[in-house]
Amino acid sequence: MSRRSVRTERRLFLADGPKAVEGALAVEACVVEVFATPVALEQYAGLLADAPVTLVDERALASLSDSVSPAGVVAMCRHLDAPLEHVVAVSARLLAICADVRDPGNAGTVIRTADAAGADAVVLAGRSVDAYNPKTVRSTVGSLFHLPFAIEPDPAVAVRAAQARGLTVLAADGAGEVDLFEADLSGPTAWLFGNEAWGLPDELAALADHRVAIPIHGRAESLNLSTAAAVCLYASARAQRA
Amino acid sequence: MSRRSVRTERRLFLADGPKAVEGALAVEACVVEVFATPVALEQYAGLLADAPVTLVDERALASLSDSVSPAGVVAMCRHLDAPLEHVVAVSARLLAICADVRDPGNAGTVIRTADAAGADAVVLAGRSVDAYNPKTVRSTVGSLFHLPFAIEPDPAVAVRAAQARGLTVLAADGAGEVDLFEADLSGPTAWLFGNEAWGLPDELAALADHRVAIPIHGRAESLNLSTAAAVCLYASARAQRA
Repeated sequence: MSRRSVRTERRLFLADGPKAVEGALAVEACVVEVFATPVALEQYAGLLADAPVTLVDERALASLSDSVSPAGVVAMCRHLDAPLEHVVAVSARLLAICADVRDPGNAGTVIRTADAAGADAVVLAGRSVDAYNPKTVRSTVGSLFHLPFAIEPDPAVAVRAAQARGLTVLAADGAGEVDLFEADLSGPTAWLFGNEAWGLPDELAALADHRVAIPIHGRAESLNLSTAAAVCLYASARAQRA
Repeated sequence: MSRRSVRTERRLFLADGPKAVEGALAVEACVVEVFATPVALEQYAGLLADAPVTLVDERALASLSDSVSPAGVVAMCRHLDAPLEHVVAVSARLLAICADVRDPGNAGTVIRTADAAGADAVVLAGRSVDAYNPKTVRSTVGSLFHLPFAIEPDPAVAVRAAQARGLTVLAADGAGEVDLFEADLSGPTAWLFGNEAWGLPDELAALADHRVAIPIHGRAESLNLSTAAAVCLYASARAQRA
């Protein structure tokens, strides 16, 4: 094997459990190899009918899975992230940009919610958690395999790319000057979500076209990141599909 | 100490960290005692000025906290749950009922989100997680101390109590017959949310006045519990405050 091919094949991640394996197998050229126990191969015979399966014992499988109770089937997958330009180009209507989202469960939930709300794509920007972290993959519940996504080290580059393509960038910001439910959300939109603890840096929020706050009616100080993203993305979906 | 008083004093829980302690101290007769390290007592001198503080060393404090890096201040608090009838009676507009919500983070996030959306109260029904689990308390980010809540073993009793008080009970149900964004949400409403894995049992969903689905526009199969609750509760807040 040449050095080049080794390097290429190192861009791999694990899809753990039948749901994730099913999602991965539905993406062309994504799955390199499926590892399954004999019991799982029998149980998921339909799913694995045309897949490149290697049989392993329970112990070997457990070493591939970070789950407490592995389902017996894990797929070795090629990375799926697309170039930023591609992801922005397919975002005719709705894009979610995560800037410095650090918790794997939050990032995965935003990807799942963006998929549910009919978003076109997601960008994991800045120091956001690895999209291929097993907890991120698991909390997308298959949406990592449905939705185009890009990884972009500089959130400002993602914001400017979205604006250059005609998307209005809205920063979700508790101190924002626009009330979510008074905003005009009918046009092509990119939502910009910040870190779970400290939100968006001022300089980044300032790059957005508007800073939008979800109204807080009670005594809570804020919403958590994934619930805030759900409220924003569904407000857009509702306005765009009315 | 009489046996009776021992039994009474066992209905206690811990509020961990300065935010939670601040919330607890704001509730009359909630805090039995605050434990603080000398460093924390100095750091939070204003907060603890009138509180009944016992000084402890780092090691004793760590044994009271389930946090990886304890902030040095923990309050021993009396249970705060109110009777179901009281909680339903104060719910003039918006109530959230959790049925068999098992994950502490989810239950806490629903309480926090209900508070933010201006709900009047929450019911933790059925086999829902303990409201006083440290992870639940932490994920409410203070809202456990803001919002009236009840603990009711039978979710059907909670549903019927809400209906008897004139609230329309809406079951959040991916297979529901009503689209969230086509529903009339302007009247007094109790949302009924089910378990994170299996949703609402059919018999319980059937007791609700309507079963309401959040539209799924993409290829995700569903939303997770706390994001679904956020979308539903904010749809109600928006309709009721329009």
